Parts: sequence; C-alpha cells; structure tokens
Amino acid sequence: MISDRFLKQIDFIIEIDKIKSIIRNNYLIDGSRKENDAEHSWHLGLLVMVLSEYFEGLDVGKTIKMVLAHDLVEIYAGDVYAYDEKGNVGKFDREKESAEKLFSLLPEDQKKEFYDLWVEFEEAKTKEAICGAIVDRIQPLILNYNSDGKSWKEHDISSDKVLHRNEIVFDKGPEVIGEYIRTLIEDGVNKGYLR
Amino acid sequence: MISDRFLKQIDFIIEIDKIKSIIRNNYLIDGSRKENDAEHSWHLGLLVMVLSEYFEGLDVGKTIKMVLAHDLVEIYAGDVYAYDEKGNVGKFDREKESAEKLFSLLPEDQKKEFYDLWVEFEEAKTKEAICGAIVDRIQPLILNYNSDGKSWKEHDISSDKVLHRNEIVFDKGPEVIGEYIRTLIEDGVNKGYLR
Repeated sequence: MISDRFLKQIDFIIEIDKIKSIIRNNYLIDGSRKENDAEHSWHLGLLVMVLSEYFEGLDVGKTIKMVLAHDLVEIYAGDVYAYDEKGNVGKFDREKESAEKLFSLLPEDQKKEFYDLWVEFEEAKTKEAICGAIVDRIQPLILNYNSDGKSWKEHDISSDKVLHRNEIVFDKGPEVIGEYIRTLIEDGVNKGYLR
Repeated sequence: MISDRFLKQIDFIIEIDKIKSIIRNNYLIDGSRKENDAEHSWHLGLLVMVLSEYFEGLDVGKTIKMVLAHDLVEIYAGDVYAYDEKGNVGKFDREKESAEKLFSLLPEDQKKEFYDLWVEFEEAKTKEAICGAIVDRIQPLILNYNSDGKSWKEHDISSDKVLHRNEIVFDKGPEVIGEYIRTLIEDGVNKGYLR
C-alpha cells in the first residue's frame, strides 16, 4: 500500500521541478546564459561544504538543507533582482504566501520543517542562517566577477550598491571572506565591471 | 591575508560552475529542455530531505553532501546516458581520472573528503550510498514519467531496461518506494511511454 503521506511527498518533489525555470539575473561564469534557482541553490550547497571551516560551531547539514530550500518560495513568487528596489517592496509577503502554498503539498510535519527553515534563513540571525546569507551573497558576486561583470555592466551597478548588498559578509562573516570580497569589488571597479 | 588554502577553495568553487553545462538525457517535467547535472544534483538533495524517513539510521547530512557532489566528476568525463551500453564501458576509469584532476584543486584534506564521498557513492554499499543510488535512479524516472515519457520514447526504452536499471531500488530500497516505482513503470507501459 502506497500511503497518502508518500504520495504527498512525491507531489512536492514533482512541483519543485519548476524551480529550474526560475531565472536569476546573474550569468554562468562562461557568460552563455543566466543561471536558474536550482543551479544557484546547488552551488550554495557546495560553497557551504567547502567553506564551512570558517564558520565556527556550524551545523553543516542544517545549513546545506537551508540553502537548498531557501529559494523554493520563488516558484510562485518569482525571483527579484537584488538591486531592483521597487521589485523588492512587498517581497517577503509574496514569498510567505508562496511558502504557504508550496509547503502545504507536504505532510503537516514536513510543511512545518520547510517553513521554519525558510523563516530562519530570511531572519538571518542563527549561525546557520548567517552562513546561508553570506554564501547567497558571495556566490553571485563570484559569478559576476568571473564573467567579466556581464550582469553588473548590463544593469550599470555601482560598487556602493554591491558593498551595501554584502554588508552581512563584512559585519558578520569570517574575516578572510570579507577581505576576499572587498578585493573582488575593488578589482571590479578597476576593470570597469562596476561603476 | 588571504591564505593559499582559501584561494584553492575559491578556484574549486569557480571550476565547478561548469557542471551547469553538463546536459543529461532526461527532460524537465514541462518538457521544455533537458536537465543539467547541477539541477539534477539539487533535486536529489531535496529527495533525500523529503524521503529520508524511509531509510532507517541514515546520516542525512552526509547523504545530501554525497548526492550534491556525486556528478562533479562529469565536468571532465561527461554524462553517459544510463541506457548507453557502449558509452558506459570504461566509465569508472574516466571518472576516476576526472575526480583526481578536479578534486586536486582543493587543499589535500578536502580533496580526500570529496574523493572518498565519490568512491563511497559509486560503491553503493553504505546506507548513505544506497540511499544516494536510489534517489539517483528514481529522480530521472519521476521526471521521465511526468514528461509523458519524452526521453524514454526518444530512445525507444523498454520496461525491462528500466526495471533492470532500478534493481537497487527493489533489492535494497524501502518497500514503498519500490512499489511506487513499479507502478510508474507499469503505467508507463500502458500509456505507451515505455516499450
């Protein structure tokens, strides 16, 4: 007998396939096309695996779950460009509604698990959520820098905006990551990738 | 001071962006295009998160790491279609060479960590690796079934081949997953998705 519980889990697994069609504003490093949310989330998982040593006392498994799941809400709410001020108004409410709808496909206990992970990520207060927020900032920055600033140039982004967007990296992140990111931004200005 | 260790880790993070351009043979559920390895690996991570309760005593964090990393070797070795018998000859050796090259970008201890995770996955003996192998089989099957068998039909795949490919699901997987997969295969034959 295949339980209702199992079939709900499968429905969720099918529905989240749609995240592969949510397109972000940054390009792959080879510049061939823009990245989608599934690829971005996968990359964040790998960043956590590789850089976890810089985050003391981190629950690595939980952090990876959080970054893999953090953008699921965009399946119904869509991706909003980090530097789109108007688009970011009301973003949390739209995503909350999307979370409610999407996670309701799951059995009640798992709905709560995914919802709680998403809220924790958004609040960026726990160690795991701070690490998640930091890799979520630096991953697109690394892609933007290494694709010759393609997306930055298209949107005429200034270094001030990038510095502001990466505040949590400098304020709460490991020193080495902050130092490295500052170098990329300065070099991005020198190379004309950033205004 | 940005350490050599950190710069090696960043080099690896940049190099693995290439996995987003390794194209698989199955389609997204909406049939719009074929899936790539990053998306596939992300989806496996979510399958582990959602279905872990059926795998007793599983180290969930380790299993997620394993599935996120298992296809990295395809960056240099390429993806081989599961039903391509000729293409699968010598696959392990090509992937081993690729693993050696790719993971060497990392500091020695992390090179070993990623290499060991990959070997463990390939051997499919531990609980975590068996779970990884099972989600690696059923994820494309779920996508193939729900895209009206698009990839199966293109390659004229028989139900026997799919049953054989999913042996580990029936032999070592949780009963409910085996039962569900058998239903999809039978239904796939009835609907003309599979020969």
